[in-house]
Amino acid sequence: METIFTTDRVRPLLAQVRDFVQNELIPLEDGFSHHAVGELIPILDQKREKVKAAGLWGLHLSKEEAGHGLTLCEFGQISEQLAHAPFFGHYVFGCQAPDIGNTELLHKFASPELQERYLKPLMEGKIRSCFSMTEPEFAGSNPTRMATTAVRDGNDYVINGRKWFTSSADGAAFAIAMVVTNPDAVPHQRASMIIVPTDTPGFKIERNIPVFGEAGQGWFSHAEVSYTDCRVPITNLIGGEGMGFRLAQERLGPGRIHHCMRWIGNAEKAMELMCKRAASREIEEGVMLGEKQFIQDFIAESRAEIDASRLFVLNTAHMIDTVGVAAVRDAVSAIKFYVANAFLRVLDRAIQVHGALGVTDDTVLAAMYRHERGARIWDGADEVHKQSLAISILKKYGLDVKKKARELQEFRRMMTAEQL
Amino acid sequence: METIFTTDRVRPLLAQVRDFVQNELIPLEDGFSHHAVGELIPILDQKREKVKAAGLWGLHLSKEEAGHGLTLCEFGQISEQLAHAPFFGHYVFGCQAPDIGNTELLHKFASPELQERYLKPLMEGKIRSCFSMTEPEFAGSNPTRMATTAVRDGNDYVINGRKWFTSSADGAAFAIAMVVTNPDAVPHQRASMIIVPTDTPGFKIERNIPVFGEAGQGWFSHAEVSYTDCRVPITNLIGGEGMGFRLAQERLGPGRIHHCMRWIGNAEKAMELMCKRAASREIEEGVMLGEKQFIQDFIAESRAEIDASRLFVLNTAHMIDTVGVAAVRDAVSAIKFYVANAFLRVLDRAIQVHGALGVTDDTVLAAMYRHERGARIWDGADEVHKQSLAISILKKYGLDVKKKARELQEFRRMMTAEQL
Amino acid sequence: METIFTTDRVRPLLAQVRDFVQNELIPLEDGFSHHAVGELIPILDQKREKVKAAGLWGLHLSKEEAGHGLTLCEFGQISEQLAHAPFFGHYVFGCQAPDIGNTELLHKFASPELQERYLKPLMEGKIRSCFSMTEPEFAGSNPTRMATTAVRDGNDYVINGRKWFTSSADGAAFAIAMVVTNPDAVPHQRASMIIVPTDTPGFKIERNIPVFGEAGQGWFSHAEVSYTDCRVPITNLIGGEGMGFRLAQERLGPGRIHHCMRWIGNAEKAMELMCKRAASREIEEGVMLGEKQFIQDFIAESRAEIDASRLFVLNTAHMIDTVGVAAVRDAVSAIKFYVANAFLRVLDRAIQVHGALGVTDDTVLAAMYRHERGARIWDGADEVHKQSLAISILKKYGLDVKKKARELQEFRRMMTAEQL
Amino acid sequence: METIFTTDRVRPLLAQVRDFVQNELIPLEDGFSHHAVGELIPILDQKREKVKAAGLWGLHLSKEEAGHGLTLCEFGQISEQLAHAPFFGHYVFGCQAPDIGNTELLHKFASPELQERYLKPLMEGKIRSCFSMTEPEFAGSNPTRMATTAVRDGNDYVINGRKWFTSSADGAAFAIAMVVTNPDAVPHQRASMIIVPTDTPGFKIERNIPVFGEAGQGWFSHAEVSYTDCRVPITNLIGGEGMGFRLAQERLGPGRIHHCMRWIGNAEKAMELMCKRAASREIEEGVMLGEKQFIQDFIAESRAEIDASRLFVLNTAHMIDTVGVAAVRDAVSAIKFYVANAFLRVLDRAIQVHGALGVTDDTVLAAMYRHERGARIWDGADEVHKQSLAISILKKYGLDVKKKARELQEFRRMMTAEQL
Repeated sequence: METIFTTDRVRPLLAQVRDFVQNELIPLEDGFSHHAVGELIPILDQKREKVKAAGLWGLHLSKEEAGHGLTLCEFGQISEQLAHAPFFGHYVFGCQAPDIGNTELLHKFASPELQERYLKPLMEGKIRSCFSMTEPEFAGSNPTRMATTAVRDGNDYVINGRKWFTSSADGAAFAIAMVVTNPDAVPHQRASMIIVPTDTPGFKIERNIPVFGEAGQGWFSHAEVSYTDCRVPITNLIGGEGMGFRLAQERLGPGRIHHCMRWIGNAEKAMELMCKRAASREIEEGVMLGEKQFIQDFIAESRAEIDASRLFVLNTAHMIDTVGVAAVRDAVSAIKFYVANAFLRVLDRAIQVHGALGVTDDTVLAAMYRHERGARIWDGADEVHKQSLAISILKKYGLDVKKKARELQEFRRMMTAEQL
Repeated sequence: METIFTTDRVRPLLAQVRDFVQNELIPLEDGFSHHAVGELIPILDQKREKVKAAGLWGLHLSKEEAGHGLTLCEFGQISEQLAHAPFFGHYVFGCQAPDIGNTELLHKFASPELQERYLKPLMEGKIRSCFSMTEPEFAGSNPTRMATTAVRDGNDYVINGRKWFTSSADGAAFAIAMVVTNPDAVPHQRASMIIVPTDTPGFKIERNIPVFGEAGQGWFSHAEVSYTDCRVPITNLIGGEGMGFRLAQERLGPGRIHHCMRWIGNAEKAMELMCKRAASREIEEGVMLGEKQFIQDFIAESRAEIDASRLFVLNTAHMIDTVGVAAVRDAVSAIKFYVANAFLRVLDRAIQVHGALGVTDDTVLAAMYRHERGARIWDGADEVHKQSLAISILKKYGLDVKKKARELQEFRRMMTAEQL
Repeated sequence: METIFTTDRVRPLLAQVRDFVQNELIPLEDGFSHHAVGELIPILDQKREKVKAAGLWGLHLSKEEAGHGLTLCEFGQISEQLAHAPFFGHYVFGCQAPDIGNTELLHKFASPELQERYLKPLMEGKIRSCFSMTEPEFAGSNPTRMATTAVRDGNDYVINGRKWFTSSADGAAFAIAMVVTNPDAVPHQRASMIIVPTDTPGFKIERNIPVFGEAGQGWFSHAEVSYTDCRVPITNLIGGEGMGFRLAQERLGPGRIHHCMRWIGNAEKAMELMCKRAASREIEEGVMLGEKQFIQDFIAESRAEIDASRLFVLNTAHMIDTVGVAAVRDAVSAIKFYVANAFLRVLDRAIQVHGALGVTDDTVLAAMYRHERGARIWDGADEVHKQSLAISILKKYGLDVKKKARELQEFRRMMTAEQL
Repeated sequence: METIFTTDRVRPLLAQVRDFVQNELIPLEDGFSHHAVGELIPILDQKREKVKAAGLWGLHLSKEEAGHGLTLCEFGQISEQLAHAPFFGHYVFGCQAPDIGNTELLHKFASPELQERYLKPLMEGKIRSCFSMTEPEFAGSNPTRMATTAVRDGNDYVINGRKWFTSSADGAAFAIAMVVTNPDAVPHQRASMIIVPTDTPGFKIERNIPVFGEAGQGWFSHAEVSYTDCRVPITNLIGGEGMGFRLAQERLGPGRIHHCMRWIGNAEKAMELMCKRAASREIEEGVMLGEKQFIQDFIAESRAEIDASRLFVLNTAHMIDTVGVAAVRDAVSAIKFYVANAFLRVLDRAIQVHGALGVTDDTVLAAMYRHERGARIWDGADEVHKQSLAISILKKYGLDVKKKARELQEFRRMMTAEQL
């Protein structure tokens, strides 16, 4: 859908990207199985060279980083196109998560030495990275609670703890680890982000976690990682001590746009498969599936949901670009759950329209589901975002829910103390 | 929500309109009852003078019509603000349905004589009009089927038939009647639009139809109208003979934007009442309704749905303004059912949050429901719009559902003919 | 649908009731308007005589009360049939709310004197009654919070306060008022139920509250009532002082079944109108509405939801009959929100299938909506029932949410006290 | 939930089964991976011996088959209990699909010779079987359309064609194949069912189809099977020629109950995991997940949906037991889509409550989803059942949709013929 956000600068890029995805990447989907991703990665790496040759590498990068200097809103539209090849697009164009988020973070906050050593090869696609924040014992939705610690010892930090859903750790050159450095500070100032090279003694990938039946490998995986007396120089700190939570917030803003636009592209992919099937599958003699109103309902609802979602995300990106993320915090919460849910509904309909074929791996639909059911969970579950959004709205009406929650927490602590 | 669509031109107007609505119109809601609208209309007419004095009358009008020359997209934002006073806003600002649609129609297609006689006083708010299309015996969703006829007799048309949901006929100076003039033409070229002054002999308001318990009166009503040998000069024809369906389509394009933006404003109204209630109603000792996640869920979902809806409609309006309605026919179908449903969900949640109070007439919520449940029905039921949207999409994938439907219709006619 | 619950005893009664409803009551729906219920009541009272003559009066009554001694589960099935005439059925058969609940209550807990004076004429349909519990300033979902008091003065109680949604107070001979008699007791033992004849000085109907545009009258109304130094003898107390909450609970058990079965009957009514319309409305030449899958979806979903709901309610009633209400408290919560929502969905679909006709008063659908949107609110909002059900379930898993809530409340009180 | 359907005969069996499942089977879930089902099957086979020793083998069998002679309604309740161990229960107790359906079919319709040779060892669990009906090129929802043929040649049938979703073909001793024997008969009398031993030359398992990322093996698999000049004696025919469709219908009746009760047991399993998680997961300091209303909403809705579903299915089974399947065809359609959808909603909520853990294979939830997403597709997609249900209902209102569809089909054939 052409929108007001389609600038003259991005329009030709969109066309180039669309062609590349169509001609070079979608054909790879045939027979694709996550159980044999090892065979595929070399092919994808060849495609990366083609992308570089075409001048399309790193479209998220600023001009000073040798990129195109697209706005977040413009790149979002590129990202949507890449997502038409759900598992290959972002990787081949060098803007895959979590590297894209780490790039943005290091670009803004890392020291020149760290940038030279880690950011540069990362941007060039020579190494990969991972982001190590969530812990199995604590709700990921509340990033102020974590047990992994980094204790200063001379010029080093010594890190101990356990993380999971450290996506793509398998094969990564370094992790950005979120760890508690200042346990006695107020909750939001306890944690810091520290670069941990994955060859550091004590850094161990315990397993690639099987997700919906598949552990994956390399970039296509989510690791559980243990840190045991893992020692890194204090200069590996990003920003300053206690800034971890703030950096996480910084990372999330654009990250939310990236996620949402990828889902919208994925949804368009599902939509396209659904429509093709509806137009070509004979259900009774001479009657195509698409003549049935049940299917028409699926298609119409999906079209509306995707188009509304896209505009919602792009307007939010535009606002971040023009007035800053602080002004659109509510929208940043809202798009997360709104788009994730719309996408998963579209995907479910596409599966249903394919009948038995839809649950097989003969299309990419089932794999998309397995990889993206987490959309409603990662990066804050729906419920968490809905709650924050509502609390933020209600504050304008004079109800300070957070303040009351803090008082209750205080009370609970008093009660516990008394019982001791 | 500030959006990319908020131009510098419309921003100050929005502020003025918002203030007027807040200070002059919302206070009228107290004790408002549709059962006594007769008492209210004189007050609203006084407010109209204030609007004129403030230079805010007819904000939908072009510069040549002495209006502000706002784009459809800009006026949409005005319309949303007016809808914060659900029953009064558009009327007081002189851009209420069905007059706004009739104005647009006469402006584009009526002869200079008809414009002088009917359009001019209509724009000035001196008279009101109605639009007489739907018939009780035929599905409104299929405007090619109707039984009301206009037969030419000398220099007159003689009209016979029965219409309903001729909104605001009570007190109107004239009706634009959709009637069959060319019964032997192909379906889409059978009907014409003709101006019928309501004092024409044979024009009769049979009743104001009770809708959800209320027949209303004056502008606040939906009439059933009979035409019995109703004679009007042939110069009362708008456009040409057989153009009725095309004119109806022309009327619908911007009309759809008007409806949708009004619903979005209504939804914001419901949202505001919901949040106020949530922030102020004590549900247990010391606990406000808004602290409950059930309510937070309602608020968050509503915020997301309204904001996505607004962007969807405004982008569609922007496309109509810039590249024309033909390019966004699909979006024009999609916004209709998408926004109507989102609005009614928000309204239902607002009622629920008010508990027993929500079903009473002590707030405007119940009245909004009664007046707007039809949003999913008027101007094409959800199901009709979903079907057209899906059919249009599937055509791009090679499935021509309409063609197949025409063949079946042909077959049915053959079968019926054989049986005779 | 024939179910396992259809006993040999109730089967012939069901047939008789069905015939009566079909032949005597449904014809009254034509032209029925709540705005003129005054004209209708005498006709309904004549029908009552026919019911009595046929031996069908008071089918909820036990044998000792000269009734048929049906079980709750059997009577539920009768109640469903009566609800096919949504506004007339229960009234004409003498088992309308709130009288049916008051009858049950007085039968179990009132003194012989009160029974002679109030219960007897009530069962005979000679007088009507009302139930006065909810207060405008307190959430109805929490019946331990109320401000209306009864202070003992000699042999009298002196009552002061304000109630609303005192249904059918208009024309009732007496109210059962829930009032605080023991303000210093624990919350659940503060209130009592007292009979207040409506001709007692100080009892005043302030207004019949307009609900969705209609204030109604007589039995068809919901009053706001004030009590000002309203003096009644202490012998008007039902049960004992402080038993109010327990009695309310007793009243709710069977009351829940009555409500749910009435909604199921109402849903069947809507379903029937929907199917008739679908089978008879031509949507295009030669094509009936019911051939469209959108409509088939509505019909199929409705059939499944109604049938599942009925079995859920009847099994709950059967359990109350055989092992007592205590064993099925969870089900009593669950059926309330489950059935109310299913019913309102069915009704909404029926309205949609009728198109513009559906929002008019030319069918009973719009009136049903106006009268029953409150189903999700009265007698505990959905949210309240869901919360209690979940809390009850989680207790079995070791989480005592209520206990934690009590501790927090205690804390809030401490905090407030300190601030003083 | 105790229901009216819990007979004295089945109650003690339910307790025994529940204990066995709890103590012997659920512990096997730890570390269960479908990727290594090969290791597990020997353990399950040992458990089968324990089941036999306890007299609990083949609880679906009639007394004459050495079973307990439970009604369909009673066995349904057993089946629910078995489904608390989603992948192991039915297999270990010898009543797993598709063998249970094949058993019922052979018991009723196979010749004594076929029964001796195939049914007997099947009932004893000595061999397994499969059911080969769906074809990749034809919608499974319309079983009258298929391309696999059996041509008579002397005393043999020669079978050619391709089937898929022939569940558990891997390792089965024989298939019951649905094939066209009478291509010139009316559609419903073209097909027959024939036993094909899997070691017949020309019978080939092409692949176990990967479903949501997993091809499985042995009983845990869905095969694509080709038949190439596959020759079996004509005595392998079940029933008579042309009876295939009727037999398929016979198989579906009780099969529907089996599916639905298994899903209800699966849903209870998901519910149990959800409640345990909600009661034990700390979300903030001192606050459990279950204290949050979002989660309470999930739990309450799930409880209501499961309980209503169970009663709907058991009443349908009871009616099949007492008055026969013909009387409850509508219910047999309705339970299919109603229960499948309720189950998948419950499962989705359980996943969501587990957060990131929910998408991993550290619980059985993700595996349940992968194996049961097809519930809305197998054995007729939701849309097919809804359509048939609605058509059946509308027929009672005078609209014969099927008749009209047949006429249209006839027309299409004429048109196609004319074009040739």
